[in-house]
Amino acid sequence: MDGRILVPWEQNRDNAPASLTVEVFDGHGDPPPDVLDDVVFYVVPYGRDQRVDLIPRMPRLRAVQLLTAGYEHALPYLPAGVRLYNGRGLHDASTAEHAVALILAAQRDLFRWAEDQRSHVWQPHYTRSLADSRVLIVGYGSIGAAIEERLRPFGVTVVRLARRARPAEQVHGVDELHRLLPTTDIVVVVTPRTPETEGLIGAAELAALPDDALVVNVGRGPVVDTEALLAERGRIRAALDVTDPEPLPPDHPLWDAPGVLITPHVAGGSAAFYPRARRFVDEQLQRWAAGEPLVNEVAQGSG
Amino acid sequence: MDGRILVPWEQNRDNAPASLTVEVFDGHGDPPPDVLDDVVFYVVPYGRDQRVDLIPRMPRLRAVQLLTAGYEHALPYLPAGVRLYNGRGLHDASTAEHAVALILAAQRDLFRWAEDQRSHVWQPHYTRSLADSRVLIVGYGSIGAAIEERLRPFGVTVVRLARRARPAEQVHGVDELHRLLPTTDIVVVVTPRTPETEGLIGAAELAALPDDALVVNVGRGPVVDTEALLAERGRIRAALDVTDPEPLPPDHPLWDAPGVLITPHVAGGSAAFYPRARRFVDEQLQRWAAGEPLVNEVAQGSG
Repeated sequence: MDGRILVPWEQNRDNAPASLTVEVFDGHGDPPPDVLDDVVFYVVPYGRDQRVDLIPRMPRLRAVQLLTAGYEHALPYLPAGVRLYNGRGLHDASTAEHAVALILAAQRDLFRWAEDQRSHVWQPHYTRSLADSRVLIVGYGSIGAAIEERLRPFGVTVVRLARRARPAEQVHGVDELHRLLPTTDIVVVVTPRTPETEGLIGAAELAALPDDALVVNVGRGPVVDTEALLAERGRIRAALDVTDPEPLPPDHPLWDAPGVLITPHVAGGSAAFYPRARRFVDEQLQRWAAGEPLVNEVAQGSG
Repeated sequence: MDGRILVPWEQNRDNAPASLTVEVFDGHGDPPPDVLDDVVFYVVPYGRDQRVDLIPRMPRLRAVQLLTAGYEHALPYLPAGVRLYNGRGLHDASTAEHAVALILAAQRDLFRWAEDQRSHVWQPHYTRSLADSRVLIVGYGSIGAAIEERLRPFGVTVVRLARRARPAEQVHGVDELHRLLPTTDIVVVVTPRTPETEGLIGAAELAALPDDALVVNVGRGPVVDTEALLAERGRIRAALDVTDPEPLPPDHPLWDAPGVLITPHVAGGSAAFYPRARRFVDEQLQRWAAGEPLVNEVAQGSG
């Protein structure tokens, strides 16, 4: 195997098969030109500033590995024949964990207690509970399954919904959404953004929910119609890690809407990600060294 | 069965065996004297102001049912021969749920996001995670088991500790506490307050924890030494539903200690309690009607 491999973490270099030439590039600064000239496999460092701009400066490049599920940002840089792999699944544990955190925060009034702590006020009251709730997961896939797994011991009933019904897995199709909403206490939205999912939870859907229902969004902001949600404020609660618009401007009415909790798109960005991402890169390097196909291929540059 | 039974909820009256004379007393006002004269079984209504003061005004009384686990407050009122029953287990689901909520709030920076929402600030950062943590449950009993059950799907390692080792259940004895602390990320305290547990988590125990460890207390405030915790502020984090003193006075330094989250003793007081408590009262009434012994006896008045 000739050519160099750039990996984001020392662990990946240290664990790499001896046949590979592996160097660490953590995204800061630029690798020297002679290194760029020789890279055949580039694992793009994870972070706010993803260095996909380096891709066209690697003439020997054959494969690009992203650590995000989204990959559209890399496509414009991808030369003909170079294969692109994404980080599908690496954020599942983190996102599912945050979804449950948001649900518990809403049910157990955690943002109220945070406010009371700030004001040095000790004023207990009874709260809602997660126990005995009916939870509808909209966009049931690997993250939805991870959420369900974590919710189950809390004594809830989980109902699964996806674009297409999968009766063998007890997954309802989206055509059943309206039938299911009136008996739902908590809707968890985990769908990606597509033309079909935009506004999927709109005025009619929110109206179909019972009073005091909770809408949780850890998918994409535009899947829940912000105006419709604001129109239902006070009747429907929400816990949103993603919003529309995003970031939410300082003067947006959603910030102060009663019963609405907001976190700034942080579901996937936790310590749970790193060990899973490092292991995944190790595994991809092993496949590369063995001449096996890498997993998670999402595109190939057409030039 | 002669004599009247006072229950807190209409459901209990409606579900009671026909042989019983059951009336609802929700704790507001006083029942009329002719009712008090005739009560043989009193289920004390649940709430801030528990009307145990009525006990001595019930001359025919034979049994008192509390809906709390604590029962010391009723003992001074208990006439000779009257049996006292507590609500052990009724709060397990609620308390376990809140314990997990506190852990997730601490790991995923929820109180920070609450503060940012209040200030209309969208400023994401990476957070800790619950995944991959080692959690030590101190005072492993029914609530501890309920916490473990809920934590397990998050990908944590749970270590159990109780006063006495129970090797068959993989429960360590308290003599192993110091050995276990250095490899613990999250300590969850669920012990009752006894002379043995007071100050159990003190300066030496906190010092034995690694940097950035989290101490969660849903047991009783004095089990964690407040002064010792303050001395470790910045190095050890805490999420406390109970404190010492309690309620926490407005000028107490714990309110503003960095890395400390506080909720005002609300773990047991959620909607999860009510269906469980109503079912339990129904079951006790069935036992009473059948002449079977009630469960959860904790004391008998010695006069």
